Amino acid sequence: MDPIRILGLDPGLRNTGWGIITIEGSKLSFVACGVVTSDAELDLALRLKQLHDRLTDVVATWTPHEVAVEETFVNKDAQATLKLGQARAMSLLVPAMHNLPVAEYGANQVKKTVVGVGHADKNQVLAMVKILLPRADPKKADAADALAIAICHAHQRKARALAASF
Amino acid sequence: MDPIRILGLDPGLRNTGWGIITIEGSKLSFVACGVVTSDAELDLALRLKQLHDRLTDVVATWTPHEVAVEETFVNKDAQATLKLGQARAMSLLVPAMHNLPVAEYGANQVKKTVVGVGHADKNQVLAMVKILLPRADPKKADAADALAIAICHAHQRKARALAASF
Repeated sequence: MDPIRILGLDPGLRNTGWGIITIEGSKLSFVACGVVTSDAELDLALRLKQLHDRLTDVVATWTPHEVAVEETFVNKDAQATLKLGQARAMSLLVPAMHNLPVAEYGANQVKKTVVGVGHADKNQVLAMVKILLPRADPKKADAADALAIAICHAHQRKARALAASF
Repeated sequence: MDPIRILGLDPGLRNTGWGIITIEGSKLSFVACGVVTSDAELDLALRLKQLHDRLTDVVATWTPHEVAVEETFVNKDAQATLKLGQARAMSLLVPAMHNLPVAEYGANQVKKTVVGVGHADKNQVLAMVKILLPRADPKKADAADALAIAICHAHQRKARALAASF
């Protein structure tokens, strides 16, 4: 069976982290990661277009089979939540435009799957990402989080396949 | 001078209202209005794609020159705010993808421009839309709101042009 390529996305208006891994049987491998940004000096509509265009480039370049997006942390600042929602829409829309299946995972679910506990901090997540994907060297925290989301999806889809086999 | 065609958008995940008017000198004219919807039974990514595709159809069919989008009402329910942000992103992205200028107006600014007071209710807005655009017969409240947003933009751009002429 050919390896499945998974794109993980950690949405944000200024920085959206992305990470590509493959899964072949039980083996996870790092492929690439990075961050797409939008220019804070532009109007919101143009910033969303930048995220759209840059995420489209990522999908076209790395041709993932499946996509996993972090469910947004909902904080108490409504303006920040609205902004995050708008950025997050790009992470959901672009894969859908390419007919790719999109799974969503809560931040705690990602941490629990990758580190083993739902309240793990950023450094623990980064340490586990480096253990599970030794060749990964994410320059930015958002890219590391995106790889963690991809790892979470790899585990969850394997668990689902196993459950379906009984 | 040729008439300017303005698209007003009232964003929502289930229903996004749209309305097209023209302005020629001081004369406003109704062109068309309606509502694009997304199917609540689909995953969020596919719902956003539906809004994207249907708004793209509206823009392709009615070829507006300028677009005005209502600034989302931010309520206290963070999940609802997030959802609205995601839907609103489609109303901003689609015009930007067509290189159309996008203006944003707060709900109170729309009411103040169209009715004269910022705390006008839905029925007052609808009544003024019908007075200003006698040929308009919006079937749904979201379409009437979208026409009000387009009217607001028509007035604001005229005021700006006047200010710039001194």
